Amino acid sequence: MSDFVPTRDDKFSFGLWTVGWQGVDVFGGAVRPPLDPAEAVHRLSDLGAYGMTFHDNDVFPFDADAAEKERHLGPLRKALTETGLKIPMITTNLFSHPVFRDGGFTNNDRDVRRFALAKTAENLDLAAELGATTFVAWGGREGAESGAAKDVKAALDRYKEAFDILGQYVLDQGYDIRFAIEPKPNEPRGDILLPTIGHALAFINELEHPELVGLNPEVGHEEMAGVNYAAGIAQALWHGKLFHIDLNGQNGPRFDQDLRFGAGNARGAFWTVDVVEHTSGKAGKYDGPRHFDFKPPRTEDMDGVWASAAGCMRNYLILQQKVRAFRADPAVQEALKAARVDQLAVPTVGEGETLADVRAEAHDPEAMAARGMAFEALDQLALDHLYGVA
Amino acid sequence: MSDFVPTRDDKFSFGLWTVGWQGVDVFGGAVRPPLDPAEAVHRLSDLGAYGMTFHDNDVFPFDADAAEKERHLGPLRKALTETGLKIPMITTNLFSHPVFRDGGFTNNDRDVRRFALAKTAENLDLAAELGATTFVAWGGREGAESGAAKDVKAALDRYKEAFDILGQYVLDQGYDIRFAIEPKPNEPRGDILLPTIGHALAFINELEHPELVGLNPEVGHEEMAGVNYAAGIAQALWHGKLFHIDLNGQNGPRFDQDLRFGAGNARGAFWTVDVVEHTSGKAGKYDGPRHFDFKPPRTEDMDGVWASAAGCMRNYLILQQKVRAFRADPAVQEALKAARVDQLAVPTVGEGETLADVRAEAHDPEAMAARGMAFEALDQLALDHLYGVA
Amino acid sequence: MSDFVPTRDDKFSFGLWTVGWQGVDVFGGAVRPPLDPAEAVHRLSDLGAYGMTFHDNDVFPFDADAAEKERHLGPLRKALTETGLKIPMITTNLFSHPVFRDGGFTNNDRDVRRFALAKTAENLDLAAELGATTFVAWGGREGAESGAAKDVKAALDRYKEAFDILGQYVLDQGYDIRFAIEPKPNEPRGDILLPTIGHALAFINELEHPELVGLNPEVGHEEMAGVNYAAGIAQALWHGKLFHIDLNGQNGPRFDQDLRFGAGNARGAFWTVDVVEHTSGKAGKYDGPRHFDFKPPRTEDMDGVWASAAGCMRNYLILQQKVRAFRADPAVQEALKAARVDQLAVPTVGEGETLADVRAEAHDPEAMAARGMAFEALDQLALDHLYGVA
Amino acid sequence: MSDFVPTRDDKFSFGLWTVGWQGVDVFGGAVRPPLDPAEAVHRLSDLGAYGMTFHDNDVFPFDADAAEKERHLGPLRKALTETGLKIPMITTNLFSHPVFRDGGFTNNDRDVRRFALAKTAENLDLAAELGATTFVAWGGREGAESGAAKDVKAALDRYKEAFDILGQYVLDQGYDIRFAIEPKPNEPRGDILLPTIGHALAFINELEHPELVGLNPEVGHEEMAGVNYAAGIAQALWHGKLFHIDLNGQNGPRFDQDLRFGAGNARGAFWTVDVVEHTSGKAGKYDGPRHFDFKPPRTEDMDGVWASAAGCMRNYLILQQKVRAFRADPAVQEALKAARVDQLAVPTVGEGETLADVRAEAHDPEAMAARGMAFEALDQLALDHLYGVA
Repeated sequence: MSDFVPTRDDKFSFGLWTVGWQGVDVFGGAVRPPLDPAEAVHRLSDLGAYGMTFHDNDVFPFDADAAEKERHLGPLRKALTETGLKIPMITTNLFSHPVFRDGGFTNNDRDVRRFALAKTAENLDLAAELGATTFVAWGGREGAESGAAKDVKAALDRYKEAFDILGQYVLDQGYDIRFAIEPKPNEPRGDILLPTIGHALAFINELEHPELVGLNPEVGHEEMAGVNYAAGIAQALWHGKLFHIDLNGQNGPRFDQDLRFGAGNARGAFWTVDVVEHTSGKAGKYDGPRHFDFKPPRTEDMDGVWASAAGCMRNYLILQQKVRAFRADPAVQEALKAARVDQLAVPTVGEGETLADVRAEAHDPEAMAARGMAFEALDQLALDHLYGVA
Repeated sequence: MSDFVPTRDDKFSFGLWTVGWQGVDVFGGAVRPPLDPAEAVHRLSDLGAYGMTFHDNDVFPFDADAAEKERHLGPLRKALTETGLKIPMITTNLFSHPVFRDGGFTNNDRDVRRFALAKTAENLDLAAELGATTFVAWGGREGAESGAAKDVKAALDRYKEAFDILGQYVLDQGYDIRFAIEPKPNEPRGDILLPTIGHALAFINELEHPELVGLNPEVGHEEMAGVNYAAGIAQALWHGKLFHIDLNGQNGPRFDQDLRFGAGNARGAFWTVDVVEHTSGKAGKYDGPRHFDFKPPRTEDMDGVWASAAGCMRNYLILQQKVRAFRADPAVQEALKAARVDQLAVPTVGEGETLADVRAEAHDPEAMAARGMAFEALDQLALDHLYGVA
Repeated sequence: MSDFVPTRDDKFSFGLWTVGWQGVDVFGGAVRPPLDPAEAVHRLSDLGAYGMTFHDNDVFPFDADAAEKERHLGPLRKALTETGLKIPMITTNLFSHPVFRDGGFTNNDRDVRRFALAKTAENLDLAAELGATTFVAWGGREGAESGAAKDVKAALDRYKEAFDILGQYVLDQGYDIRFAIEPKPNEPRGDILLPTIGHALAFINELEHPELVGLNPEVGHEEMAGVNYAAGIAQALWHGKLFHIDLNGQNGPRFDQDLRFGAGNARGAFWTVDVVEHTSGKAGKYDGPRHFDFKPPRTEDMDGVWASAAGCMRNYLILQQKVRAFRADPAVQEALKAARVDQLAVPTVGEGETLADVRAEAHDPEAMAARGMAFEALDQLALDHLYGVA
Repeated sequence: MSDFVPTRDDKFSFGLWTVGWQGVDVFGGAVRPPLDPAEAVHRLSDLGAYGMTFHDNDVFPFDADAAEKERHLGPLRKALTETGLKIPMITTNLFSHPVFRDGGFTNNDRDVRRFALAKTAENLDLAAELGATTFVAWGGREGAESGAAKDVKAALDRYKEAFDILGQYVLDQGYDIRFAIEPKPNEPRGDILLPTIGHALAFINELEHPELVGLNPEVGHEEMAGVNYAAGIAQALWHGKLFHIDLNGQNGPRFDQDLRFGAGNARGAFWTVDVVEHTSGKAGKYDGPRHFDFKPPRTEDMDGVWASAAGCMRNYLILQQKVRAFRADPAVQEALKAARVDQLAVPTVGEGETLADVRAEAHDPEAMAARGMAFEALDQLALDHLYGVA
């Protein structure tokens, strides 16, 4: 089939650290050469992506001074100009260097926290300069392996302090930047603060500038907690907080697999695309990048890396076509009605009615109980669409 | 050892459905006779509990009329008077009867939602009458097995509608009652709405009367999602939302085990009691009931049921003694300092300082990186206390 | 699409307890009426199944005497004759009645173990009479919630004793029956003996008549342990021990969902059908029934039950078509070669070679290390086939 | 408390890669300096260990020639002589170098498989020379991320071929060495071959020299699959196959945490020590090393590393004392009897009895069903012993 070729309008973006992952893990060293950021830009552009994203230290070394940073940023800027690729999002690495062994914003060591703030502020300046409007914050090392090591109350105070200060900085500078917190339940820490979409959404409500902060939920991170990703981003949309999205694949509670999008939970991917494409929340529909945060498996050479990246986009487009067909299918619309899905959009208590009215009316629970929900027939239609046999 | 005998001051309470569980599960029928609520009151009182809680239909049948309800409530009231046991919490069963096959407040069927509202309002009246000040809402059937069956956005709208209406009702009636949502990730539904502490905390922020609604987190429910329960209730406290608590035991992601408190994750139980006893959040420390929501295993006869209930309280008291000793131990205090836990309570940016000051100062990340966190020594002290060899 | 209509040749069978499940779970009662076994036979036959299976007490009550059994078996036999439906497998219920609260063959109570043996032997006679050639043994209550309650060594001795005795009985009677053990990690017990395919395979090797005993692996049970089902049955085939198969759906480690086949892990289902259709082990390919062991969700009425049952078969046929197309696709064959999958079938040490020869030859690990495995391209082809876009 | 000081008689051993782990993970680089093997020997000896174990490339580089190997082995031998520390086990690293990206013995690439055989044989010679009698085989990269990439049947054939050849080599050389397979469900591969104790036990039965091959089960690896480790090693003992043991800590299905022994599942650790100390299988009790395979968290400096190693031994000794006290406690013995644990050791069918006798006798299931198992009281005694309040 010749379709499913991505274009810039599809708004696909990739982390530089995805195609650039050299394969280092706990059990082994690099299997692939370093990837030059400028080359990544060209290759991603050729594949049909519209954007690339990066951590500061994906592009320049941790200890780079201004001159060295520029030596690395120059060729990147050139490649962006040559290709028209965007940098819609930037993020700060607060987890690789040993200084962040206990995290950044919530590190027990106050000196480290100060350094983390300074490093992030510096990177916000770069984000603004490069036109990135989303600033992702993944607090991968903010957590603990044991109960006394982290005072959760104090940690949340410090976490809040960091976002309050950085939010104020963005306002003061007039940057067009919003923060997107990326939750994760564990790995590399035994337990990570703000472990799920829900915990992060709740946290945001305590900030001084909640309007500046939303979420960047990752498929695999939620599935590591055994919760439904599509339902999770639907709740994030309901709160008006889906600021960015990390698409990849995972097979349930285990290590963070970062499979290419579509691999892993295929049915989950179908419903994920359905929500991204169709669900409208407090702030409308999601219209940001379709961002892939995956790791080409360590089995692959660079050809495999690009095949894997292309697969992410292809799978999104395949599923996009399928969920549109699903929603447009008259048989589906009938089945949705049979399942009374439409009734859920109707307020339980009508205009002008009161709870007292509801209590006063006759209820016949046995009659209601006899009505099946017809969900299995509806779901089989969805599966037929996924399989391409509808 | 003769200590660890519970008294009323310990504020232990039990769901009637815990000691009264007859053992029906998916694979088998009842193994124990029905337990008379009045007898439960007397037995729990004898064991040292201070309170009992119940769902409406734990005490009277689903279809009971006012007279039949009273026939069941009368002996219960009498037993409460005789023993002095309290009913600190009541909850409504919106999950057992077939009418709730798709849930109550978020059932696709509008008639069922109206019935659920009426049933709950009726039970609020009973709660007020019996002096219960907490009203737990576990939405165990609010969810779905498949993606199209539940429109999550609409479901959250309806969920909010229900709490807005019931909150207003409580205000209108002048009831001294607060709601406590009990999150759960799955079972009996494939995925349940508001699956974790975080999702429920976030949801509450969208309500018309958020001050009336907090959480009733259950140990096992969070551990089914592989997240840290102690950290979860610490976050709930941080938000001022720990309104009630469900203590039991679980062994990680699997079916809802509802083991007696202390069985399951023993180290988790230690830190749970530590947080309950010592952590102070936006609304101060938790001072509600230590409520047990467990199921005496199906292997047990009624003697085993009472042994299991007694074990819940005993284990709490043992752990309470241990966490107090842990916090009072000078070696621990020294280890906490070595782990720089105290530093986390200090704002990262000092009074009068600015982010610019922090950025301007010299940072020496290599020097900071050389400092170990000394968490293992600290955690070993905790384990020594758990083992009783400190 | 009008294809995917099952016929008898497809060898689809269903447990009577699947379509007959009334929806009783830990949190609620029956939502559907009892299903008459004879009606089940007719309906399953109409849907295209070739067989039905059952536990003794799915058909007649636990305490039925010979006459009552016959009252229930008569109409069943008649329905089988009328429809031509087969009973390829029978199993004994050793888990529902309270007497089995601690299991059957490994119950601590010796009287219960003796009763379990007698009950099973009686059911073996019935199996032989009805022409069933497979006798499934799911030891759902063989296990424990706590460490001292079950002496695992003694339990395995007793488990072996039971299979040795029952195996000898089958031989003595000249029955054409083989046993198929169904592993499960947990639920309803906290931990179950022989928790995975592997544990059961190992156990069989210690029996007196290992040739009489094989496995009945269930999709969901393995996925509850986070292990790969397709790989598991491939290992069972390698040992010549895939005697029967239980197809259904599950979403990773959580309660036993028993979703219809195809729902749950869709990619896993694709590879499952691939192994069932294509993998040949020590005893050749699997040629037994494609047996569905699922539970129509509690949301469904009887129409939903039959829709769900039909979906199981439909999904198998869809996937069967897909895996055949996948294996026949020239692009796939090329990709398999690029991934060197063919090389794995070649002995590592050739005919006439010795380890010494292998050690003596020059190895160039750096050169080998440069070769990517091209697995991502191969897997994308598989996904294209799953999606129906290859 | 001044007890719990390890001595050589306790037979504690550590992998060199445990205390020597520098902290490299998927998300960050080394946080600790390299640890000289000779220094490790001295430090472990000082702490009270009796043995150290290693992978070939823990001591010398992957590409070392004979001279370079000797340059690294010399100081190690010297340290062993100085301290009297033993090398009871050696293992080959077939997972770190990029050449093993798809595994060793089951790599699709035949050249890699040959290299893996040669590398392992070379290491067997070293094991023999150093007096190691156990050779662990952890096939961490033997597996796949996707279904078509690995032909499981062929992979098991090759796995068997490798053990058959290496077993023959050990026999031919007259080495006093046995192999111990270490199962793991996943990580670093998506799914790993021989994922649990059970799968590996079953596999061994197909080998040409099954007597030479047993298991090295790791606590965390089994708990990653949600199965009970203590029950797993009890089954391994039942088969006479517990050749070695890897003790550490884990919190259920998630990434491989490798916590120090005692951290993680504390109740599981209690039962693990109980089985190691008390359970006798086909080959008697386990009398091998108590080997720790853990990773000192990345938060720690070298002081923390040694604290963590000391904690492993301390926790074993604490639990050893507790399980001995538990088994010796008259109240426990009474509770075991009440739980009818003793009855499980009695054959179900007595000497001289037949199945026919059992069937002929009168069974009164209702009477049996009325007997509770008294497991909760028994388990509470265990918990009291764990807490040190018995």
